[in-house]
Amino acid sequence: MKKSLGPKTLVVPTPVWIVGTYDEAGRPNGAAVAWGGVCCSSPPCVAISLRAATYTHGNIQAKKAFTISIPSEKHVAEADYFGMVSGDSEDKFAKTGLTPVRSELVDAPYIEEFPVVLECTLLQAADLGQHTQFIGEILEVKADESVLGERGFPDIEKVRPILFTPGVRVYHGVGGLIDNAYSIGRKFQ
Amino acid sequence: MKKSLGPKTLVVPTPVWIVGTYDEAGRPNGAAVAWGGVCCSSPPCVAISLRAATYTHGNIQAKKAFTISIPSEKHVAEADYFGMVSGDSEDKFAKTGLTPVRSELVDAPYIEEFPVVLECTLLQAADLGQHTQFIGEILEVKADESVLGERGFPDIEKVRPILFTPGVRVYHGVGGLIDNAYSIGRKFQ
Repeated sequence: MKKSLGPKTLVVPTPVWIVGTYDEAGRPNGAAVAWGGVCCSSPPCVAISLRAATYTHGNIQAKKAFTISIPSEKHVAEADYFGMVSGDSEDKFAKTGLTPVRSELVDAPYIEEFPVVLECTLLQAADLGQHTQFIGEILEVKADESVLGERGFPDIEKVRPILFTPGVRVYHGVGGLIDNAYSIGRKFQ
Repeated sequence: MKKSLGPKTLVVPTPVWIVGTYDEAGRPNGAAVAWGGVCCSSPPCVAISLRAATYTHGNIQAKKAFTISIPSEKHVAEADYFGMVSGDSEDKFAKTGLTPVRSELVDAPYIEEFPVVLECTLLQAADLGQHTQFIGEILEVKADESVLGERGFPDIEKVRPILFTPGVRVYHGVGGLIDNAYSIGRKFQ
């Protein structure tokens, strides 16, 4: 017998990603999001959701582009800060000392110090209520060589991304390897 | 200097969720998805993406409803199996011994043995290419009392959800607590 918790976004895991944009004046901004996920393999697409009041929301609508920079655990304080203040009032890059790098593919900056970044062009936006969902086509993934593993893919144990838990609002790290996908389930076939 | 990995869905973390549906004959099915995430706080909404060829894709279009059951690590083999075979050809509940429970709110079943479940009504569907993104409004979250923690919210260390890593295609567990959100970033203000 399960307990009812009501109509809430009590979902795990959710990611901690920093959305990079330029404003109309060309100033770089970053905003933390936990509402997001991959939404298509081909074309490769990722979805992120933002409130209309956020600075990043206006920037994406103006520039039709954004990046996602995936922070490692060691930058958890910076990532948290990127979700606490608005780029309208504070220069988050100046405050944190992180480095915005202009994408060569889209009109948006990514964060040099974060190990994996996605460069996205806006495909569509849908107003769902409190949040607008922006779907971006991933034009390119870039990663630090130091986080690449098997077959040149990012190794989650080297990237060390951050997990956000809604409700209690805490951050966790990634734990140990459980097993290979498309493999351990065979015993039920 | 980052290395280019191309236009790929090399994103971390991604979840492992089982989407529960009924087919036209009322048979329960479950399908594993890693492409998904929360997409709105109010109304509370979650997005999942499925290929048109999947059995679940047709079921959602017919029933306008789905559930998400979040597996714990101990059910990783069952979760993997739910992503390996089609409900068109196999009765995945019979094979795994897991129990489908009829939702009282939507025309879809959830998995009794998984600790957290979401009951969703279909809000919209968008064909993005290889995948269709289905957005569901979360009408209710149910959880086992054993995974609830602070203030009655799910505790990720008790839920022990599974993380999927695209590219290398492996499963990881959740690691240790890093810190509180909306807190540790204050040092930059």
